[in-house]
Amino acid sequence: MIKHALSVTREADFAAWYQSVITEADLAEESGVRGCMVIRPWGYGIWERIQRLLDDRIKATGHENCYFPLFIPLSYFEKEAEHVEGFAKEMAVVTHHRLVSDGKGGLVPDPEAKLEEPLVVRPTSETVIGTAFARWVQSWRDLPVLINQWANVVRWEMRTRMFLRTSEFLWQEGHTAHASEAEAREETRKMLEVYRSFAEECVALPVVAGEKPENERFPGAVETWSIEAMMQDGKALQAGTSHFLGTNFARAQNIRFQNTSGELELAQTTSWGMSTRMIGGLIMVHGDDDGLRVPPRVAPWQIVIVPMLRDAPEDEALVTYCRELQAQLASLTAFGEPVRALLDLKPVKAAGKRWGWVKKGAPLVIEVGGRDMAAGNVSVIRRDRLYREDGKLDSRAVARADFVREAAELLAGVQSSLHTQARARLEASINRDVTDIAGLQAFFAEANRTPGWVELQWAKPTGAVLDKVVEQLKALKLTIRNAPIDAAPAQGDCFFTGAPAVERILVARAY
Amino acid sequence: MIKHALSVTREADFAAWYQSVITEADLAEESGVRGCMVIRPWGYGIWERIQRLLDDRIKATGHENCYFPLFIPLSYFEKEAEHVEGFAKEMAVVTHHRLVSDGKGGLVPDPEAKLEEPLVVRPTSETVIGTAFARWVQSWRDLPVLINQWANVVRWEMRTRMFLRTSEFLWQEGHTAHASEAEAREETRKMLEVYRSFAEECVALPVVAGEKPENERFPGAVETWSIEAMMQDGKALQAGTSHFLGTNFARAQNIRFQNTSGELELAQTTSWGMSTRMIGGLIMVHGDDDGLRVPPRVAPWQIVIVPMLRDAPEDEALVTYCRELQAQLASLTAFGEPVRALLDLKPVKAAGKRWGWVKKGAPLVIEVGGRDMAAGNVSVIRRDRLYREDGKLDSRAVARADFVREAAELLAGVQSSLHTQARARLEASINRDVTDIAGLQAFFAEANRTPGWVELQWAKPTGAVLDKVVEQLKALKLTIRNAPIDAAPAQGDCFFTGAPAVERILVARAY
Repeated sequence: MIKHALSVTREADFAAWYQSVITEADLAEESGVRGCMVIRPWGYGIWERIQRLLDDRIKATGHENCYFPLFIPLSYFEKEAEHVEGFAKEMAVVTHHRLVSDGKGGLVPDPEAKLEEPLVVRPTSETVIGTAFARWVQSWRDLPVLINQWANVVRWEMRTRMFLRTSEFLWQEGHTAHASEAEAREETRKMLEVYRSFAEECVALPVVAGEKPENERFPGAVETWSIEAMMQDGKALQAGTSHFLGTNFARAQNIRFQNTSGELELAQTTSWGMSTRMIGGLIMVHGDDDGLRVPPRVAPWQIVIVPMLRDAPEDEALVTYCRELQAQLASLTAFGEPVRALLDLKPVKAAGKRWGWVKKGAPLVIEVGGRDMAAGNVSVIRRDRLYREDGKLDSRAVARADFVREAAELLAGVQSSLHTQARARLEASINRDVTDIAGLQAFFAEANRTPGWVELQWAKPTGAVLDKVVEQLKALKLTIRNAPIDAAPAQGDCFFTGAPAVERILVARAY
Repeated sequence: MIKHALSVTREADFAAWYQSVITEADLAEESGVRGCMVIRPWGYGIWERIQRLLDDRIKATGHENCYFPLFIPLSYFEKEAEHVEGFAKEMAVVTHHRLVSDGKGGLVPDPEAKLEEPLVVRPTSETVIGTAFARWVQSWRDLPVLINQWANVVRWEMRTRMFLRTSEFLWQEGHTAHASEAEAREETRKMLEVYRSFAEECVALPVVAGEKPENERFPGAVETWSIEAMMQDGKALQAGTSHFLGTNFARAQNIRFQNTSGELELAQTTSWGMSTRMIGGLIMVHGDDDGLRVPPRVAPWQIVIVPMLRDAPEDEALVTYCRELQAQLASLTAFGEPVRALLDLKPVKAAGKRWGWVKKGAPLVIEVGGRDMAAGNVSVIRRDRLYREDGKLDSRAVARADFVREAAELLAGVQSSLHTQARARLEASINRDVTDIAGLQAFFAEANRTPGWVELQWAKPTGAVLDKVVEQLKALKLTIRNAPIDAAPAQGDCFFTGAPAVERILVARAY
């Protein structure tokens, strides 16, 4: 039996395992500020890689980055009724702009510096960006407006979980305005596809793209689309959303343009976002009982070189040997970018470093001892194949030159094997055979572990009928995730109502 | 006489000219939220370039990026007395975490959701990052800690000016902890040098690096160093600061480590920051009466191709000709990166586009008409040499192949000519001949325009004597900018007290 690097396994306690990965991989920690976390260098490095790769794709589809204010006047929220309803309950409100001494060595908000109109810390920026669009858009020639912003947002949360649900989180939010409904709908789907392909290709995260049911729409949206990923405990994680807002926000914010016939028309808008939540998904999809496994494309360091130093005179030659290796690796290209190789010279014992990098999930860990050097070798550990069949650590001695020659290919191999494993798990865990509520209950009956998702077909009810469906599912702690774009056509009766089914949907427990 | 693109010149009204550049170059605009601006794509694109290039240098000097909470509990500020004193007067305070309906269609902060401890929106993060350092640092082996964060910060401002002084602004803040005072002092100076070389090499901004006088120190710092740039109106702009904090913050936040002798010691900390203010400096150093001139290294688009389209069938061939040019340019390397070339196909007349890009300050604007294409040419406008000697626009027809061959060199030429012009102006505008207060008053007497800075020598007084010096200068609307690192040694008497001088300082009007 393998003795793993973490003290808790996924099987034993998935939630505790998740927290343990975050701690042991130095991803993030409690900040001491309620609901807010500190994202540590390894966690933030992953976020920087996600930013860089997603930003490239957002720009390649014609969007430009901007920056809008953190604070939104209260009155902006009062204009779009549904939007207020959806967000009003969980916002941080700035009411004062100065502190004064309380006369007892402490500080208090200065009563004389109370704001006339309180400011809300943005939970999302539709209202303030829409107000700018109203200034920018006069004529059809000003359309489309295609912008994006990378920002922090705040939604007050009572129960928080790192990366998945924190009061403050980081994200990008795209906002666009178009002359025609067709173009805005196309944009909504185009960005959904950007998210899908980014998740699959860069984060190695298999996802299902589809439309959210009415009850799960973004407040004020006409349509909400999502990508959903399956965690190793069988739960779903919404990993990105794209909203077609129709003219709802344009009407509230007065985004009007003169069309080619000279008439004044409301613009059609969209918005779409992906956040640091993605890191939570990455952990729960790729992590194992030895810690995190980071797909090479988003790994801050793809290859980490650990010299077996002994505080001896021979160390110098060993460091030189490793520096040469690092320089050779850094001159290589993988995934169209220079390879990111670190030489770890921290004053820590080599075994501690090895396991530190295993827990952090560096894709390749290269150990180099005196014997390796003498033979012109390096010892290679692939994080996606940590153990041999006999349960021993799979560390392979390879000629240094051979390793350098194959390094880029090895990284591509790790990226693809992580994706393949996760894709196989997703596909094996969608049940399409459940036919009634009792069957649904039975499928999800196991206490600790969710066996996966259920795909079923329905009549896409609305109003009171939908409410009843949602309630039935809620009683089983289930939600509708989305109606997958690539699902088979519906045929037969609605799972809930018996009416003719019109589409297939995924039902799951979710984060 | 040249008819310039802006309606107001630097000479006529520098402040109005500055605002006009920001508007006409689409850099930023009022957001409708008090003291906060919207940074538009061209302005934000410059910031992204600054971020990318500065971030590379911050990482190359061994720092890692992290992210810390936006909100800081009030109590954190109460620990470091001087720091509170310096910031307490201008902070945004979150007091509630929920809104409720006011029963009249509006929203108000929910009295039942009042926070027990108010949260301050970070004006800077020493307190919250220091608290994390206290957790991270136990032993000398954990030092140095070298981190940086890119973030938004808020300092409530009564009088705001875009990029120079806004309530919310974007910046990076570096924070480090060291085992020895010498190493922390070295770090402070190293990052000052990173700022200096970054400003000179990337933003083409000549600056003077030096130490701030005691009265201008960051609240809680032992030493504050700055880089100061000279604007075209002769005023100074502080464009980056680096602080040696000694053990002041470590004591307040309990950052202690076991040294190699096993004793508990306070860590020595530093912090350093550069912000979106840099864009204000870029405008006021490089702008002219036709708008902005962006140094190529930080230009979002370095070369903009404007086809002279006529809504005619020939347009297609012209666009193809321009696309080929764009592809050729994009395959070139300038300043170690791929050249950024845009083909502008927006439905706007070509003359409007030309002047739009001139006002935005794109380094090279390439116009291509039917005649150019027929001759295999392009027409090149260099933004740093817009007019010929006879006052006509200097647009030169060049063979397309020749232009492509020389494009990278041309960009390097624009970068260097902007720097050379600004460097010459800085050096010509430092007066070293003023010997007494009356002379100082006379030098700065002109109403609208400041002729430059005065370098003088002083005895570096402290306490009440310094206060008096500061007051004397304040009466003339002057401040001490810094004591330049590379100034000549002092010789003679203190300008203010007559005591033996110990160093030279720069005195100026400032933003």
